[in-house]
Amino acid sequence: MIRVAVIGAGRIGRIHAANLSRNKDADIVYVSDVIDAAAESLAKTCNAAVASVDQVLEDSTINAVVIASSTDTHADLVERAATAGKSVFCEKPLDLNATRAQECLSVAEKHGVLLCLGFNRRHDPSFSRLKNEIDAGTIGNVEVVSITSRDPAPPPVQYIERSGGLFRDMMIHDFDIGRWLLGDEPNQVFATGSVLADPAIATAGDIDTAIAVLRTASGRMCQITNSRRCEYGYDQRIEVFGEKGMVRADNQTATKVEVAGAGGFATEPALPFFLERYADAYRIQLDRFLRASGGENIDIPGGADGLRALQLADAAQESLETGKPVDV
Amino acid sequence: MIRVAVIGAGRIGRIHAANLSRNKDADIVYVSDVIDAAAESLAKTCNAAVASVDQVLEDSTINAVVIASSTDTHADLVERAATAGKSVFCEKPLDLNATRAQECLSVAEKHGVLLCLGFNRRHDPSFSRLKNEIDAGTIGNVEVVSITSRDPAPPPVQYIERSGGLFRDMMIHDFDIGRWLLGDEPNQVFATGSVLADPAIATAGDIDTAIAVLRTASGRMCQITNSRRCEYGYDQRIEVFGEKGMVRADNQTATKVEVAGAGGFATEPALPFFLERYADAYRIQLDRFLRASGGENIDIPGGADGLRALQLADAAQESLETGKPVDV
Amino acid sequence: MIRVAVIGAGRIGRIHAANLSRNKDADIVYVSDVIDAAAESLAKTCNAAVASVDQVLEDSTINAVVIASSTDTHADLVERAATAGKSVFCEKPLDLNATRAQECLSVAEKHGVLLCLGFNRRHDPSFSRLKNEIDAGTIGNVEVVSITSRDPAPPPVQYIERSGGLFRDMMIHDFDIGRWLLGDEPNQVFATGSVLADPAIATAGDIDTAIAVLRTASGRMCQITNSRRCEYGYDQRIEVFGEKGMVRADNQTATKVEVAGAGGFATEPALPFFLERYADAYRIQLDRFLRASGGENIDIPGGADGLRALQLADAAQESLETGKPVDV
Amino acid sequence: MIRVAVIGAGRIGRIHAANLSRNKDADIVYVSDVIDAAAESLAKTCNAAVASVDQVLEDSTINAVVIASSTDTHADLVERAATAGKSVFCEKPLDLNATRAQECLSVAEKHGVLLCLGFNRRHDPSFSRLKNEIDAGTIGNVEVVSITSRDPAPPPVQYIERSGGLFRDMMIHDFDIGRWLLGDEPNQVFATGSVLADPAIATAGDIDTAIAVLRTASGRMCQITNSRRCEYGYDQRIEVFGEKGMVRADNQTATKVEVAGAGGFATEPALPFFLERYADAYRIQLDRFLRASGGENIDIPGGADGLRALQLADAAQESLETGKPVDV
Repeated sequence: MIRVAVIGAGRIGRIHAANLSRNKDADIVYVSDVIDAAAESLAKTCNAAVASVDQVLEDSTINAVVIASSTDTHADLVERAATAGKSVFCEKPLDLNATRAQECLSVAEKHGVLLCLGFNRRHDPSFSRLKNEIDAGTIGNVEVVSITSRDPAPPPVQYIERSGGLFRDMMIHDFDIGRWLLGDEPNQVFATGSVLADPAIATAGDIDTAIAVLRTASGRMCQITNSRRCEYGYDQRIEVFGEKGMVRADNQTATKVEVAGAGGFATEPALPFFLERYADAYRIQLDRFLRASGGENIDIPGGADGLRALQLADAAQESLETGKPVDV
Repeated sequence: MIRVAVIGAGRIGRIHAANLSRNKDADIVYVSDVIDAAAESLAKTCNAAVASVDQVLEDSTINAVVIASSTDTHADLVERAATAGKSVFCEKPLDLNATRAQECLSVAEKHGVLLCLGFNRRHDPSFSRLKNEIDAGTIGNVEVVSITSRDPAPPPVQYIERSGGLFRDMMIHDFDIGRWLLGDEPNQVFATGSVLADPAIATAGDIDTAIAVLRTASGRMCQITNSRRCEYGYDQRIEVFGEKGMVRADNQTATKVEVAGAGGFATEPALPFFLERYADAYRIQLDRFLRASGGENIDIPGGADGLRALQLADAAQESLETGKPVDV
Repeated sequence: MIRVAVIGAGRIGRIHAANLSRNKDADIVYVSDVIDAAAESLAKTCNAAVASVDQVLEDSTINAVVIASSTDTHADLVERAATAGKSVFCEKPLDLNATRAQECLSVAEKHGVLLCLGFNRRHDPSFSRLKNEIDAGTIGNVEVVSITSRDPAPPPVQYIERSGGLFRDMMIHDFDIGRWLLGDEPNQVFATGSVLADPAIATAGDIDTAIAVLRTASGRMCQITNSRRCEYGYDQRIEVFGEKGMVRADNQTATKVEVAGAGGFATEPALPFFLERYADAYRIQLDRFLRASGGENIDIPGGADGLRALQLADAAQESLETGKPVDV
Repeated sequence: MIRVAVIGAGRIGRIHAANLSRNKDADIVYVSDVIDAAAESLAKTCNAAVASVDQVLEDSTINAVVIASSTDTHADLVERAATAGKSVFCEKPLDLNATRAQECLSVAEKHGVLLCLGFNRRHDPSFSRLKNEIDAGTIGNVEVVSITSRDPAPPPVQYIERSGGLFRDMMIHDFDIGRWLLGDEPNQVFATGSVLADPAIATAGDIDTAIAVLRTASGRMCQITNSRRCEYGYDQRIEVFGEKGMVRADNQTATKVEVAGAGGFATEPALPFFLERYADAYRIQLDRFLRASGGENIDIPGGADGLRALQLADAAQESLETGKPVDV
């Protein structure tokens, strides 16, 4: 039994707690949150105690910590938990500042603890199968990865303002998936973007529509398109083109119903947003973290992946601002 | 060069003439029709002469005759053309009366001429591929054939009245396809039907919606569903289930465009009717008739197929009327 | 909180127990099984006590009973539970004998208790949506329902021998779905079948491949095709054709991955069997039973549905044996 | 009747001649080619005379000229035909040199003749429907156009050497389609590429895999991916994302057959190459040229479109070489 504390009882913290509850090998011992009521409410549903972060870290029976608090607390909490010898699962990003993320990563490495980053999409069954097909040689050498990622609707401007911008907040997932599927490290980023969905985003100094192109040393390429608004649901598609063919993952829908009438054939929109689309991925992610935390040798995105994705996001932001490709 | 006469200058006659015109090995020499103006109009577009049936059959340079006149003339014309030693392509059915069809078939056999029936669907590239996959063993032994065949809109009641009824006029195509794909002769037919699409069809003594089930001696089965009205186009689908899997042919559309919006994803209706859906089949059918007529050994539905499909249709009609399965 | 006892700790009993455990409104108090070890094992995983059926029925704090024991015990248990005033959920069928099922239904009615039948497919989100679209008038009047239902592999012959035969064991689900979607009571059944998948099934006096056609008084029709063996997974599809169009539910797959190579494009097989395909349906079914048990007015298949489906199955069996359609 | 001369009797010239033959309003009077045998062979099949370019241009009864000769002859022939007052259809590109193309365009404008460029894809029924949906406002303002265009196999290196490079030879079609669907002029191009398919292409100084990103002044974007090799057929897909949804055109296949087996469901590869995929587009293109040539006001790509696409290709080449985005 792995004894776990959940730090952060907001939307994502509750998802992680629910998934931990369903895992027979995990016991949620503590819930911690800066807002007492939030901590209490979540603690109650998972039969855990409310505790401060200090209490959590001082309790030597706690094996693992799941960090789902606000982004600006991630780096400190990771360092403290690592220093206390806990296995750490941290929501992305480690930090909006790559230097700070690097420091944090060094601390975790120094203490030899497991540090997993919340790149949930890597655990999606469809995307996992893409990776497995690539690794199995189904399409031969990977040549071009194409990622389409569109949110259903823009978040509030207050969220945008603190988000670090589209590349660090949203496309960072795609940078991670792109690296992972290319199987080769991108060393150049070109990015461009516009405000086409919501003018308020321009006033916050950000963009809502973007395209990025990554290149690796061996000449493989990845193209990514993002939008903060999409009428037909949460558009999450990946296509990997290789020398022997192509593998792709399409959107998912709630049912497989089709309606035919005089206008033709109609199927339903893509699943509405990440909670629905990546429900399985969130569950599998925590299961795999627990297994890794228990000593199993398992492929799971770690601190270095978090750092690298952040560096690609920083390069994309620089490319947007300078109008030129940026070497990473 | 095969010298051909087209008898019947109506809608189907014009389709056949156009396809003959595109075939380098065919020369349309004569067009014949009981309506002079129709014959002249078609003769003009294909650079042929107008002639009476007598003239056509007396001209010993004519190798092949394409019969596309009204159904009640088919049997006589087939017999006369066969007696004159011409290769004969005849639109389905040979006759609405099976005994008459049998006589006609005997005459053709006696004179040793080629007699091809216009079961155009066998020449459709998708359905041909179904047959090829079956013959190649892709799905092992065939067990169940499922045919969906729905017309876009009911024909005028006057047409219904002379049609011989849904089974002989419409489902006859499916009986032929069913036999062909089962690869085994059906020896029992159960059929049932209703008037659900157009009450006027009831007054004509016919039905507009029907289901039939065929069985072969070896226990293979075929289910067929027909409707005279379908909102989403001309619904033409076949599914063949076997011991090792399934092959199926889906509807076809004019473009491969998909439109996504808040309501989901929409594709266009099936092609509107047989002229569009089976355009390739009509062309290939005549090409294959010409090749067979030229002596090539080629699989093409003949008089016996026409007779057998008619017998199945008769049995279906009897089953509808008696409420019991009928042995064939 | 609804206090529930689970009777029968086999495969289906465990599924129901797991779903009850996930429902916040249910408390599994007892587990009962003729095999002690089975009862104990399941009771442990859901934190319940082991009890005899007598103990369960004598405990007046128990509100609801879930019957998942062997088929031959269903009718007695339903009667006893109804007499004890419990809400009853019973796996299909009530009994293999329609007269016995009728008696059982009368007892439940006399005691005014809720009696729900385990026609899980009605709760499948795709099939529910078909029903909703029909009820919303999307396709106008229903005309033809087509149901394809194929199991991945034949069960052991010992299972077949006690199953009541394909129509009462397997197609009974489709009879229920057919009635439900037709929205009109079938009053005639024609059925035919063969042994094509597994010769051992013939020795058990049953068939493994079947087609049935149902008719209602108003002329609506339903065609059903079943096979005990299917290479490409658990084939579960429904198509409902109406005056204004068609709605259909396609098979489901584990991922939305497609692989393209020189041979074309490949997607994965249908989900393997009912545990995967109807996982959501099983969960929703119990949730709805609990809500109905709690007094909510909710559409859920009851005893009369169980009886009617059994009568259709009996009629299909008679039709198979006599070679004629049977009135119901 | 429009009297036409075909200049160039190679592969494309023969396609154009066949399509002209099927058009009732066209009469192919002359065929011209630098290789006499080629001219004679084609002239024979379309019942035309062989003539030199001089003879063609001196014959004042000739209304229209279709130029399908080698690329290096296009500009001269266009100028001479325009000067002779003929309507001109010219295969793309006008010239590999934008300055030369500009001169040529000026000559055509000075003589007020119709000059149509062979951007065949604009006439593809699926792509035309994309344009129509956009123009009808189905997706609101266009935001991102994504074009996937992959040839089945690399051409011979000798072809590559004279082609002007991937951007001017292959992606030029996509630049034209991108401009057309964006509905807004791109003013910046970023392009990158690699040799991943065929090392021989590197020795010819070209690339075989490329990605380009276009931007318009209003911030709309277009991403294009090209490869000279694709295992699953000629991959030709377009997706247009807008404020209200998305429209896309998928690949086309020869049949709609699907094969299901233990491994899943398989459909066939995309149509093999442009002759099959764009057969309709080639036919419609010539029909529309003839109608425009006859005075009808019809939307068809002209000399300015040819020049603009070439400028985008030049900019892409410069971007590839300098590693920076290039303003156009």
